[in-house]
Amino acid sequence: MLSSPAVSGIQPWVTDDTVALLVDQYELTMAQAFWRERMFDEAVFSLFVRRLPAGRNYLIACGLADLLDYLERFRFSADALAWLGQFPHFSPPFLEWLGRLRFTGDVYALPEGSPFFAGEPLLEVRASLPEAQLVETMALNLINLQTILASKASRIVRAAAGRTVVDFGLRRAHGTDAGIRGVRAFYIGGVHATSNMLGGRVHGVPVAGTMGHSYVQAHSHESEAFHQFTALYPDTTLLVDTYDTLEGVRRVIHLAAALGVDFRVRAIRLDSGDLGTLAREARGLLDQAGLRQVEIFASGGLDEHRIAELVGSGAPIDGFGVGTELAVSRDEPALDIVYKLTSYAGEGRLKLSTGKAILPGPKQVYRVEDRDRTIGDVIGRAEEALPGRPLLHRVMRRGRRIAPPEPLAAARSRASDELSRLPGPVLGLPPADPQFPVRVSERLQSYTRELSRRVAGP
Amino acid sequence: MLSSPAVSGIQPWVTDDTVALLVDQYELTMAQAFWRERMFDEAVFSLFVRRLPAGRNYLIACGLADLLDYLERFRFSADALAWLGQFPHFSPPFLEWLGRLRFTGDVYALPEGSPFFAGEPLLEVRASLPEAQLVETMALNLINLQTILASKASRIVRAAAGRTVVDFGLRRAHGTDAGIRGVRAFYIGGVHATSNMLGGRVHGVPVAGTMGHSYVQAHSHESEAFHQFTALYPDTTLLVDTYDTLEGVRRVIHLAAALGVDFRVRAIRLDSGDLGTLAREARGLLDQAGLRQVEIFASGGLDEHRIAELVGSGAPIDGFGVGTELAVSRDEPALDIVYKLTSYAGEGRLKLSTGKAILPGPKQVYRVEDRDRTIGDVIGRAEEALPGRPLLHRVMRRGRRIAPPEPLAAARSRASDELSRLPGPVLGLPPADPQFPVRVSERLQSYTRELSRRVAGP
Repeated sequence: MLSSPAVSGIQPWVTDDTVALLVDQYELTMAQAFWRERMFDEAVFSLFVRRLPAGRNYLIACGLADLLDYLERFRFSADALAWLGQFPHFSPPFLEWLGRLRFTGDVYALPEGSPFFAGEPLLEVRASLPEAQLVETMALNLINLQTILASKASRIVRAAAGRTVVDFGLRRAHGTDAGIRGVRAFYIGGVHATSNMLGGRVHGVPVAGTMGHSYVQAHSHESEAFHQFTALYPDTTLLVDTYDTLEGVRRVIHLAAALGVDFRVRAIRLDSGDLGTLAREARGLLDQAGLRQVEIFASGGLDEHRIAELVGSGAPIDGFGVGTELAVSRDEPALDIVYKLTSYAGEGRLKLSTGKAILPGPKQVYRVEDRDRTIGDVIGRAEEALPGRPLLHRVMRRGRRIAPPEPLAAARSRASDELSRLPGPVLGLPPADPQFPVRVSERLQSYTRELSRRVAGP
Repeated sequence: MLSSPAVSGIQPWVTDDTVALLVDQYELTMAQAFWRERMFDEAVFSLFVRRLPAGRNYLIACGLADLLDYLERFRFSADALAWLGQFPHFSPPFLEWLGRLRFTGDVYALPEGSPFFAGEPLLEVRASLPEAQLVETMALNLINLQTILASKASRIVRAAAGRTVVDFGLRRAHGTDAGIRGVRAFYIGGVHATSNMLGGRVHGVPVAGTMGHSYVQAHSHESEAFHQFTALYPDTTLLVDTYDTLEGVRRVIHLAAALGVDFRVRAIRLDSGDLGTLAREARGLLDQAGLRQVEIFASGGLDEHRIAELVGSGAPIDGFGVGTELAVSRDEPALDIVYKLTSYAGEGRLKLSTGKAILPGPKQVYRVEDRDRTIGDVIGRAEEALPGRPLLHRVMRRGRRIAPPEPLAAARSRASDELSRLPGPVLGLPPADPQFPVRVSERLQSYTRELSRRVAGP
């Protein structure tokens, strides 16, 4: 072993001291090789999704703000360098150079909240080759996570068709970082609130919550639990399915009768069983008791398909709590997302690997719109002037953000506005037919052919 | 909005100041209700998986060390309390009490690395009700993540049947916390090394790496890239699929001829195309050139099924790099894992919710073994003395760990040893038939029936 563990347990692992070690070993060995070979010319790396996941018709770009923050903070601390110095393959002069290294490149990106599609760069990094190389892993990690989560949230929110959606996912999120960044991504995707206190605090997102089964269980009687909880929180949501759901609803009705005008319970929550049927029966009981103002909130293994089914069947449900399916984007927990060298020292670069070929050179994406409808996208060379609205904007110049981070609400509105202009089938839950049209410009096609011939040549 | 965000971007979110805010709002509102009602008696909460995921025949318990660390650090800082004070529903006397609260309970748990099955408690928390309630979300978050990841790693490592498995997953892990904790879980599950520098450092796990396509692409010729990289790293692994895999292999062979005795390349890496066929063809070319010592390493979308197929077909592959499938446990990214109140003030508690019923009271799991074979498990009441080896051990007493954290190697050996004693079908990749037998003891069954009657009664 090279060293004893520096930190363990619940620790602030990602600090200014350690952030640059969030890297795969090969990026460091390649960086040392580039340094030794004096390969410091400008590289262009393009971050894109090779194929849309089967269960997604669009993706929502998310994670850029955190990536820019990372790029500004990127540096190898004395502590990190001392640790790297224990590896025989890193030379002292390289480590000395690494200690002085900062990210001084330019970044072009889709604004957060923008819908995008397979093959389209959502980020281009233009920087000296070793700098651009060393940030690969974190660029992917930060953008992949939030893009997956915002995209999943967007589907769930659309399925809920205007009803409230609350994130209940912290317990099943993959660790605390995903739990906290998730709150941000879900909000951009359209979720209304989160049960996650720290996530809500960090991102300024509304927090919400109901009650747990343990509260009901800890009391000798369900009625006693309801009575005590509403005494403290009059306008709360009562969880009615601990023992028998409809019996639980009747107990809420008895409580209303006992409290009279002091009864201010806002909602009941159903968390198990046949939610559609139970919601109808509960609604019937509540209405019959004159409790039309008491809403019905549902949770328990919900995803966009189940929510669409409940909404479509007219189930009288006013809001949904979504945990696991949202927290890990369960059906599609990862993107086929890559960060690829497309140009070095002014020359386009490509790969011809089976199924993994890339489009060379710096690029731009043009979104073609006809009044309030989006018709299709075209991927072109960066210097082309094609019809349509260019989607990639410079967001960092020489290692510094061009503008301060925008409020979350701006990215959230952008997602909602841009989605509303996409073709109907793309917004549906089933695989879109036809898919959203993305073309490669003539010039980019011929440039790719030309370079392929050159590489494949003798 | 209640407050402006405290922190954002790449930040040490989880610090001693914020750790207790990693909680869902309902745990805090319930805690205030318990405090108001003076419900401070001992609660027993049981953490278990309701159903095994369809793609898992066993799970590997993991995450306990981090949970114990969290429980020891659990406290609401002045900063956290000030933030909570902005919510009108938390009263100043409650927040004052919350500021003094520490976790002072006992914890019983399966040692890390233990295989376990549906319904079996892998953790029992016995503490004053509000304390036990407030740690719910983090107990689930910490155990869920590492258990999923160690379990997935274990399947992949078994499929590789002795060949090296390296974690390449940081870029697709759900955030940095999952990336770093993942390294630990993968190692316990049997993975040999990681490409993740910080993860390797934190957990003392060997780091490894090869080269990326960008290195080859940045050079004018693949041969030049191979030449330069081996000049710096003579015993490296060369990535041969950037343009044409077999042509890449021939370039390695030319390099060997040019370098003579100085050629010390350890392996080539295949990352695309038909890995089985390419490995055979590459092996043939290398052997023909007298390079039998050069190993073949494969990567690219691998999971346990694809690895088993390659191994089963006799493909001459010496090691596997696994990224996405491992990093997010792609086929099963979440467990149906819950933390349920089973006893309060000495009385068993249950839930009767459809599909979500629980077994009441503190419990023990007995593993029945016949020499070196594991026959089955029995879940019993904690005070029963049943035949078999009890799996739950007290690991924390009055809020303090009973022993220092064990080395990772101990949990890794435990997993490997205990797995080797499980029935063959349970260790295979397809759904086990029969499943591993888990019984509920007679006494626990009759106790459950008795309590259910009482709860359902008038």
